[in-house]
Amino acid sequence: MRQRNKPWAKEKLAEYPQYVIQSPDQWKGKWHEVFEKNQPLHIEIGTGKGRFISGMAKANPDINYIGIELQDSVIVTALDHIIEAELPNVKLMNVNANDLHTFFEKGEVDRVYLNFSDPWPKSRHAKRRLTYKTFLKTYEEILVDQGEIHFKTDNQGLFEYSLTSFSEYGLLLKYVSLDLHNSNFDGNIMTEYEEKFSNKGNRIYRCEVQYR
Amino acid sequence: MRQRNKPWAKEKLAEYPQYVIQSPDQWKGKWHEVFEKNQPLHIEIGTGKGRFISGMAKANPDINYIGIELQDSVIVTALDHIIEAELPNVKLMNVNANDLHTFFEKGEVDRVYLNFSDPWPKSRHAKRRLTYKTFLKTYEEILVDQGEIHFKTDNQGLFEYSLTSFSEYGLLLKYVSLDLHNSNFDGNIMTEYEEKFSNKGNRIYRCEVQYR
Repeated sequence: MRQRNKPWAKEKLAEYPQYVIQSPDQWKGKWHEVFEKNQPLHIEIGTGKGRFISGMAKANPDINYIGIELQDSVIVTALDHIIEAELPNVKLMNVNANDLHTFFEKGEVDRVYLNFSDPWPKSRHAKRRLTYKTFLKTYEEILVDQGEIHFKTDNQGLFEYSLTSFSEYGLLLKYVSLDLHNSNFDGNIMTEYEEKFSNKGNRIYRCEVQYR
Repeated sequence: MRQRNKPWAKEKLAEYPQYVIQSPDQWKGKWHEVFEKNQPLHIEIGTGKGRFISGMAKANPDINYIGIELQDSVIVTALDHIIEAELPNVKLMNVNANDLHTFFEKGEVDRVYLNFSDPWPKSRHAKRRLTYKTFLKTYEEILVDQGEIHFKTDNQGLFEYSLTSFSEYGLLLKYVSLDLHNSNFDGNIMTEYEEKFSNKGNRIYRCEVQYR
């Protein structure tokens, strides 16, 4: 997502340490201390403007959520949602997904969400896709055993690529929908992007895979 | 495919033993004797009216093909195609896919094609789908090691089901297209059904999976 530069973003993120985790490596191994309740932790990688993560946190008070987004000029909008919602079970992290293992111990994360990740359509950029094998390894290093990735996108090429990448890595495909908005899947929380592109007639693809 | 009953079909199939294998269990372990050339053997399960299998045989003279179809009133049309084409590398079998292990030794078949198989949409009929685990086991019993299944359909529900069934069975998803006719896949041979339903605007889904 290309966004207007917001030079004040970093500063604003620092003003809300109760919502935006500062120096997240200090919590490695003790994330349960960060939240009010000790309950399962789900993270979204590439949380964008945060509609999904805040919607999920509201709908599922028995889960803790962390939205991770590298671009500070985007995550500040997520922060606005979270300030407004005043939810105890959702936090943000302005960090790079490559570094997840420096923030979480193995088994601290119960589920990873990937929503409308950058497709990086050129073959030479395949390594940057969040479903490339090195990322699948990174998620494995922080997830519980048999942890799950839940992934949705409207990008056909990225979805095709990801299905084969998951399979090569040995992940179990538990669920797949090739047209989410015309399926019987309950409780879908749309991202900003999802609403925009499904309104244009794009199909939304979704799957759930599990480490085994 | 529901077809007009053709009481003369059985008789006609018996009149062309050079194309329609009679008592196929007699060839178990020696299928190379049935064909002019000893070369890889690919089979299509549910060959219908035979446009795919005869087209493939024509396009790939270095592969032997067998089209398998249970309904005699359908496979007689495939026979007409094959009589007309006069190809040495394609045969038909009017048998049930459940019995494949009685016709082929382990390793005699190099690839299985499934095209536009009956979707059996009701959950209670899942066991009849040609991508159900018992069929995947049957194919494994006759395929070479690391043998492949190539599958295409326009039925979204069947394709979704099949992707999860393949994954549960432990198959490797090597290739997937969620819109075959708008992909860069070369050498597609359309079935009768495929032409009809893609002309109506249906997407064609295709994948290749491999035993590992």
